[in-house]
Amino acid sequence: MAPAADGPEDVTVQTVGEIGEFELIARVRRLLGTNERVLIGPGDDAALVRTRETHVLVSTDVLVDQRHFRRDWSTAVEVGRKAAACNLSDINAMGGVPTALTIGLAAPAALPVTWVEEMVRGFVAECAKVGAQVVGGDVTASDALTIAVTALGDAGRPVQRSGAMPGDQVAIAGELGLAGAGFAALSRGFRSPRAAVEAHRVPTPPYAAGPQAAGLGATAMVDVSDGLLADVGHVARASRVRIDIDTERLPLPTPVITVGEALGRDPVSFVLTGGDDYALAATFSAETTLPDDWTVIGTVHDLKADEEPSVTVDGIAFDGDPGHQHYR
Amino acid sequence: MAPAADGPEDVTVQTVGEIGEFELIARVRRLLGTNERVLIGPGDDAALVRTRETHVLVSTDVLVDQRHFRRDWSTAVEVGRKAAACNLSDINAMGGVPTALTIGLAAPAALPVTWVEEMVRGFVAECAKVGAQVVGGDVTASDALTIAVTALGDAGRPVQRSGAMPGDQVAIAGELGLAGAGFAALSRGFRSPRAAVEAHRVPTPPYAAGPQAAGLGATAMVDVSDGLLADVGHVARASRVRIDIDTERLPLPTPVITVGEALGRDPVSFVLTGGDDYALAATFSAETTLPDDWTVIGTVHDLKADEEPSVTVDGIAFDGDPGHQHYR
Repeated sequence: MAPAADGPEDVTVQTVGEIGEFELIARVRRLLGTNERVLIGPGDDAALVRTRETHVLVSTDVLVDQRHFRRDWSTAVEVGRKAAACNLSDINAMGGVPTALTIGLAAPAALPVTWVEEMVRGFVAECAKVGAQVVGGDVTASDALTIAVTALGDAGRPVQRSGAMPGDQVAIAGELGLAGAGFAALSRGFRSPRAAVEAHRVPTPPYAAGPQAAGLGATAMVDVSDGLLADVGHVARASRVRIDIDTERLPLPTPVITVGEALGRDPVSFVLTGGDDYALAATFSAETTLPDDWTVIGTVHDLKADEEPSVTVDGIAFDGDPGHQHYR
Repeated sequence: MAPAADGPEDVTVQTVGEIGEFELIARVRRLLGTNERVLIGPGDDAALVRTRETHVLVSTDVLVDQRHFRRDWSTAVEVGRKAAACNLSDINAMGGVPTALTIGLAAPAALPVTWVEEMVRGFVAECAKVGAQVVGGDVTASDALTIAVTALGDAGRPVQRSGAMPGDQVAIAGELGLAGAGFAALSRGFRSPRAAVEAHRVPTPPYAAGPQAAGLGATAMVDVSDGLLADVGHVARASRVRIDIDTERLPLPTPVITVGEALGRDPVSFVLTGGDDYALAATFSAETTLPDDWTVIGTVHDLKADEEPSVTVDGIAFDGDPGHQHYR
């Protein structure tokens, strides 16, 4: 038994190295439920998941300790919820409904078993919000705690990044800037404002809005994981258009204003370039009447001769880093 | 530019840290083909993969540098082929046909770009053997090179681990012991026998035999990744039976005998406990006539009162470690 890193002196914690791979898998499996979509669940060579039609959406994200989460900033439940959320969000951004997740866990031998169990509880809780199920995974030893998640989903009318048309309106659903402001606050040693810090720890993707947008005829959609300008930039390039963001129309949450004032930063920058909120940004024809879940924030423009696809802010090029990129 | 670790003196290599996440993804995408099953390929929030029926097989494996592969033992192409193979094998072990893979790559900034490109070429080459396609992935920075792979597949009649019946015959398809003998040889600094060393670097799973076994009415099936006794043990426990292996019927490849003699080890131990060959072990009713791809190696027995499920060797309990387990 190894001493607990941060716990009371007399407490000892059981580590994954002590119980081994097979016992760890057995404990994790006890935390997983099942539903009618899971035809064969965890414990075999592969799981079998029912699809609504004869196709399936699939997306993968890898989260690394100290880069995507910090165990001193977030509880294991929060890490699990966030790891699930960012993958469920990818299915949401296609207009789909998530059905199943797999978890690939590479973890140091010294990691407490309870940390893994709590992380899995976080996965289960987040999946329950959309009716998805953890159907399988893998556990392996590694020096770097790494969580690789794959999400499957049912697609109705899949909404790609490439369909934005000149004249379309650009709209967002969900929060923007809160998680980025929370990250900035935590990085400076603050633990508030609470709404921002919590948004960084556990995002709240607008799960209903993805299929809703597909139903409304969205021409393109993306989830905002790296930053609004960076992710809308993917839509601009895939659709060969210029997208202009009207900053006056951007919702500016009070906690974002608070963090901006405390840190001497323009709060709008959190909304434009802060990632990790997993809001949706979508384009719709100008005639589409949008429900309250969606806020119009810009318009799609034709490219002039020799013009490259881009995102402009109030009509001019953005002078700064549009969002997060690994190795940059 | 960083100096090449093992190359000629004047050569400099471009690293993933130098080109960044988005350029790395763009380069990888150029190496990927497509096929008629891929309705939406890499580059969107999720891929869309056609399924033959209204369900899909899914399996995940995580490979970590220095644990599942060594860059000084294997080329990047070999690492990619093995990472693909062990995941395609999981679909094979369900009697399914693999259709799509995703690759989650966590890599140090100093990793050469060419290493990633060669690894992806390995994935593409292995996938081509079964008509599968790389449809998406993720790239992130990490100190530990980690490759998380998820395989999707079409299931005909899925063969689980839990259906073995007393009286069934136990049979294997594919190689057993070669990869384990190759690993033992490499570990002692040998680079031969070539067939064993190559089997460790790139396994050759019997991809046709999985669906074949399903068609023959296999009652249970598993792929041998941790070791024959360990993996057949999963079938024994899931099916609540005793499985007896008849060592006289086990094929003993010549290179395995060679390694056994050189290292003073019983060559049969490589066949019983060596992993990484990705052979199939399956159970069939005694009446099933098996094609040449399959070799009968044992029988399934009823449990006596109070007897726990187990694997016996020539009728007696095996005295040793049945195979690989992480953290053990």
